[in-house]
Amino acid sequence: MNQQSHTTVTDPVAHIHELGQRARASSAVLSIADTDAKNKALLAMADAIDVQKDALITANKIDMNAANERQISAAMLDRLELTPARIDSMSAGLRAIAAQSDPVGALSATELRPSGLEIARMRVPLGVIGVIYESRPNVTADAAAICLKSGNSVILRGGSEAFNSNQAIAECVRIGLEAGGLPADCVQLVATTNRDAVGALLTARDWVDVIIPRGGKSLVARVSEDARVPVIKHLDGICHVYIDSGADRNKALDVAFNSKTYRYGICGSMETLLVAESETDILIELALRLEAHGVELRGCEQTRKLLPNAVAASVDDWQTEYLGPILSIRVVAGLDEAMQHIAQYGSHHTDAIVTENMRRARQFVRQVDSSSVMVNAATCFADGAEYGLGAEIGISTDKLHVRGPVGALGLTTEKYVVTGDGTIRP
Amino acid sequence: MNQQSHTTVTDPVAHIHELGQRARASSAVLSIADTDAKNKALLAMADAIDVQKDALITANKIDMNAANERQISAAMLDRLELTPARIDSMSAGLRAIAAQSDPVGALSATELRPSGLEIARMRVPLGVIGVIYESRPNVTADAAAICLKSGNSVILRGGSEAFNSNQAIAECVRIGLEAGGLPADCVQLVATTNRDAVGALLTARDWVDVIIPRGGKSLVARVSEDARVPVIKHLDGICHVYIDSGADRNKALDVAFNSKTYRYGICGSMETLLVAESETDILIELALRLEAHGVELRGCEQTRKLLPNAVAASVDDWQTEYLGPILSIRVVAGLDEAMQHIAQYGSHHTDAIVTENMRRARQFVRQVDSSSVMVNAATCFADGAEYGLGAEIGISTDKLHVRGPVGALGLTTEKYVVTGDGTIRP
Repeated sequence: MNQQSHTTVTDPVAHIHELGQRARASSAVLSIADTDAKNKALLAMADAIDVQKDALITANKIDMNAANERQISAAMLDRLELTPARIDSMSAGLRAIAAQSDPVGALSATELRPSGLEIARMRVPLGVIGVIYESRPNVTADAAAICLKSGNSVILRGGSEAFNSNQAIAECVRIGLEAGGLPADCVQLVATTNRDAVGALLTARDWVDVIIPRGGKSLVARVSEDARVPVIKHLDGICHVYIDSGADRNKALDVAFNSKTYRYGICGSMETLLVAESETDILIELALRLEAHGVELRGCEQTRKLLPNAVAASVDDWQTEYLGPILSIRVVAGLDEAMQHIAQYGSHHTDAIVTENMRRARQFVRQVDSSSVMVNAATCFADGAEYGLGAEIGISTDKLHVRGPVGALGLTTEKYVVTGDGTIRP
Repeated sequence: MNQQSHTTVTDPVAHIHELGQRARASSAVLSIADTDAKNKALLAMADAIDVQKDALITANKIDMNAANERQISAAMLDRLELTPARIDSMSAGLRAIAAQSDPVGALSATELRPSGLEIARMRVPLGVIGVIYESRPNVTADAAAICLKSGNSVILRGGSEAFNSNQAIAECVRIGLEAGGLPADCVQLVATTNRDAVGALLTARDWVDVIIPRGGKSLVARVSEDARVPVIKHLDGICHVYIDSGADRNKALDVAFNSKTYRYGICGSMETLLVAESETDILIELALRLEAHGVELRGCEQTRKLLPNAVAASVDDWQTEYLGPILSIRVVAGLDEAMQHIAQYGSHHTDAIVTENMRRARQFVRQVDSSSVMVNAATCFADGAEYGLGAEIGISTDKLHVRGPVGALGLTTEKYVVTGDGTIRP
């Protein structure tokens, strides 16, 4: 791992070009590295993180103190903090990724064509990934691990407020790469907090194959606007739960309550509840639970007849990602109106139906155009670890060509492998 | 199919927005259309093309006459022409696409997670595709069919010189859509040759999910530069054949000769031949055949010692897509030098090795980063029909996330389908 101090970088653009060239060169080695070498590196990274837990917390304290002095928001402080439990889950994520099968080199079934050619597809890495993220230091470990597993070199540009934490995690990554006998340049940290470096990264077509922004809406919007390399991103998580007519009362109460309250700040949190007009009893009981939990309710006209405490919801409410203890509620005639609402106001992230009706469940799954569609499950499950990816490098609401939580497989593509025996085209 | 005359369009930008809105609306229907309806439409299109063969040739004659008057190049005239054989292969392509399995709705294996959730991935269409192409009228049928099969609505902007041919093919497409009971707006032709319409299409983020340019280098470059929607494209096809040491003499001669001479103008045609220094005998014999066929040879110093007629090759030659009867030749020490040359000068399109050595064949396949890698097969096979896709909408040298010939499967993505039983996150 390239460990320059950020004080030594005088030309941020030249710095990015240097990192880019190194990343490209190391990617040629990493793209064909043995599975064993990659897994050895991942397990050694996990061990280093466990062993250096105290050092990580010490480095993080420096960042936390500086952040406290700058009086940043409580939410940001929470994201920045490394607790022993968070460090444990970081190393557990690395071990889960090591345990996964290696996507690189996997061959599809081979088709024999009339020409005599045998045609298959082989999974290959994308090349060099640039990850631009904000305060969460765990992204440093997660992104390094997912890129390594998928055979991609990575350039990491973390938040300036997490600089010391990221450097400490990077040291563990370096130990891991060395243990696996892999080039140190497979994972590089941008060694400056100068913003020109971000601009250079976003336009480094020669060195970077894809950019992944992880952070708030303004970061993602800026990256999307300025990038000249392809971007894998998600913008909003305006997630819906629809309680279908005839839904099981307890499942509906559990799924909707959990979808809203599991953690307000995650992108998979429910922002709008849609309820079939036949199930307003469930709505009334659910509203009591949510209000007792401190959730502000905003509703359509019909909702407000049932829930006198609810504020009137405006069109803005249907298209807002609250990321907080607020819920908008709409009573709908049934499935079609619910799906219309989701199509109009949703953000193609995660949407759930609570139903006992097989036909309507299948219709919802088929028709709702979101990166995750759920049946009788809470939207807050939208998460790479929960999906068995070990960790995720982000949740994509893009369509080309990876959607939902993105793990190692999502950072590979396929090439055709064509085998003949001196075969020519007549 | 929307059949406005191009004389009626007064505002090209408003026209694109109208097509876009219609495409988006029809895509909601098409994305969940039955496989039977789609295949019925495809077969009816094929029948209509067969039945209307004379009408297609008549319409094409109008375009050909106009093109002749404008004295366009012979290569362009050739691309524009619809012959009976080309019309037969157009309808055969549609039937081949109808016979393929429907990618849409296919579910991956389901994984049961510790939380009790069942997680799978479902193939879904991308949405609305914009195809911008030049003179070949068959693209109208191929693109309509591939998009239809993959559940995507499409907006087609063909070359102005093929306007009448495209309209005639579009009429067959319209008959097919009607036979399948599918919305006419699933396939729309841009009804103006005004270039502002292209600009509007490239930036129509609300209506278009991906743009596919098909045509010469300048078209693709312009689209890549101006597009604000994602693009699936290929730029150059600088394809290599490497004759390995110990290669079978006949296979080497056949594969190399066919790769160059099958058709000079296709992107899968060989532009550079790499020969292991132990196999210069093969090179001498091959050179005689190629020269007898009218191919100009340009070589490295070592090549010119063996082939006195060969001109000296410059660095420019290694990075030029001739698309004509010229071949650059380099003698290399062996596999590593050949792969280095391909990495430095290649365009990630299609590269082949001729070898009898299993280890080096595998190394070449694993390590060469091209959309198709071939063993003992001619590079001119790089083609959707030859790969069993029926037709192709282009050959992608992009990486996110579809590479090589792009058929229906390449125009789909996946969403997660998560099923629980009132499952909540603790």
